[in-house]
Amino acid sequence: MQKMRAAPFCAAVDWGTSSFRAWLLSADGTVLSERRAADGLSQIAPGSFELVLEGHLAEFGAPADLPVVVCGMAGARQGWIEAPYAATPARFPDLAAEALRVPGLDREVRILPGVAQRDPQRPDVMRGEETQLAGLGVEGDALACLPGTHSKWAAIEAGALARFSTFMTGELFDLLARTSILRHSLGGDLHVSPDDETFLSAVREARADPGRWTGRLFGLRAGDLLGLQAPQTRAPWLSGSLIGIEIAGGLALHPQAREIALVASGRLADLYAGAFEACGLAHRRIDAETAVRAGLLTAARHFWPARAEASL
Amino acid sequence: MQKMRAAPFCAAVDWGTSSFRAWLLSADGTVLSERRAADGLSQIAPGSFELVLEGHLAEFGAPADLPVVVCGMAGARQGWIEAPYAATPARFPDLAAEALRVPGLDREVRILPGVAQRDPQRPDVMRGEETQLAGLGVEGDALACLPGTHSKWAAIEAGALARFSTFMTGELFDLLARTSILRHSLGGDLHVSPDDETFLSAVREARADPGRWTGRLFGLRAGDLLGLQAPQTRAPWLSGSLIGIEIAGGLALHPQAREIALVASGRLADLYAGAFEACGLAHRRIDAETAVRAGLLTAARHFWPARAEASL
Repeated sequence: MQKMRAAPFCAAVDWGTSSFRAWLLSADGTVLSERRAADGLSQIAPGSFELVLEGHLAEFGAPADLPVVVCGMAGARQGWIEAPYAATPARFPDLAAEALRVPGLDREVRILPGVAQRDPQRPDVMRGEETQLAGLGVEGDALACLPGTHSKWAAIEAGALARFSTFMTGELFDLLARTSILRHSLGGDLHVSPDDETFLSAVREARADPGRWTGRLFGLRAGDLLGLQAPQTRAPWLSGSLIGIEIAGGLALHPQAREIALVASGRLADLYAGAFEACGLAHRRIDAETAVRAGLLTAARHFWPARAEASL
Repeated sequence: MQKMRAAPFCAAVDWGTSSFRAWLLSADGTVLSERRAADGLSQIAPGSFELVLEGHLAEFGAPADLPVVVCGMAGARQGWIEAPYAATPARFPDLAAEALRVPGLDREVRILPGVAQRDPQRPDVMRGEETQLAGLGVEGDALACLPGTHSKWAAIEAGALARFSTFMTGELFDLLARTSILRHSLGGDLHVSPDDETFLSAVREARADPGRWTGRLFGLRAGDLLGLQAPQTRAPWLSGSLIGIEIAGGLALHPQAREIALVASGRLADLYAGAFEACGLAHRRIDAETAVRAGLLTAARHFWPARAEASL
């Protein structure tokens, strides 16, 4: 007897600046099919959002009435349609309630809002990460770290996103290693291994004394000119010190946290896990894609409860 | 009766990466003539150092036997001829003793060395700033700040350059304001006024808590997206916070210093003077060109004492 393929409940899309990821999901969250493409906002033609989405749905063989839930930069002002930011403290169910339906389409497509922290002293925004955080299913308190070009640290209190902070860790690394005068000393290979001794000690030192960083940066150049460092220690030092500063600032968001939820994938997850271990910080790893999918599914069930019941 | 023009004692040249400045000096330091050009290392053809220098000397009407003293990047490995770094602690008279005579020229041209701090924990180098420091004529202790793309802070002890630290303040400002994601929020006008309130409070805050900086940086972007800041506060905040971090690190070089010697010119001198005043830090301003000329003259008198006496 042939095994029946589960009926698709919805398509879930994480649509960012540089990437597009979509999953065809059953109502219990089973991934029936998935697609990844470089169809991020910065890659596709303006005004081509519907075309790009329908192209991927056609590859899924998705029926014309399959609803779609989207998170990420597609909801930014420069995206498909602006889904205004929800405000902190943000309860995760409220994010679905504030989603925007894309008008003028035959298909139902809902875009989740980002979250804004409208504190004039610490203004901050996220788009996409709030859906990963929702996917953690935290009902009490938690401290989460979502590493990346612009890393986010978020304090969750009583199941709501209470406050968060963005660190330009990945962008600063790239600017310094590829564009600044330090590029002459860093060479082409910027790979950093999570068990590299220089990396780990740089994490510890920068976390303990984050204010010294800018005064030590030029040492990468000077150490090169003076032949005082092994060249392969430079990228690990730069990466480790930036991550150490991020850890110092991130922990300050929720000093009582007993562990850090590290929401990441692949190489970045390994690097941050190594950094946390070097600092003796308890953490658990949650795959970033699993988290965003779970957050999108929760929102979809909120939008289409009858459809979800029918497919279960 | 016609006033006699003093006989030229030497030509003094500050030859950097992006600029060339030369003075025709009498033995008492009187400037008989001066030249400024964009003939920095990065602008002139490789191998054209003698040609460029002789061109400027010809404009001075300098005699063929007029000796020349040079400081700056012309003595770097990628410059005219490498004048190896002197080591900290560096007595200023020793810098002249370690100068290099350019070989194979009819004219006597001596290039002053830079200074290296060969501490593996704090490697650092300078080229050109040591001559400004020598020009201060400090015989006891001092703390000097030389602002720029790569600001230098130097502790002088018993008349010798004891230790120093480079801060990539100007380069970080440019990278962040013109290249990073923050460029979208900073706009084109990056001018910062030294009495700007945002600038002054950013200096104070960053000096007091330099470790928070990377966690606040993205606030320039978020505050823009959320309409939470006056746009004209962003460049002052970025500049002020970078200078505040620099002050925190620079003061640590010589915590007992009673005043800061601010060796700078023009707009940068005003900006740093404003920053020091905001922090209640005593300082005196020394014009950077006056300082470098004094340092070059001191070296020239060391090289050519008989010539100096004869012209006085």
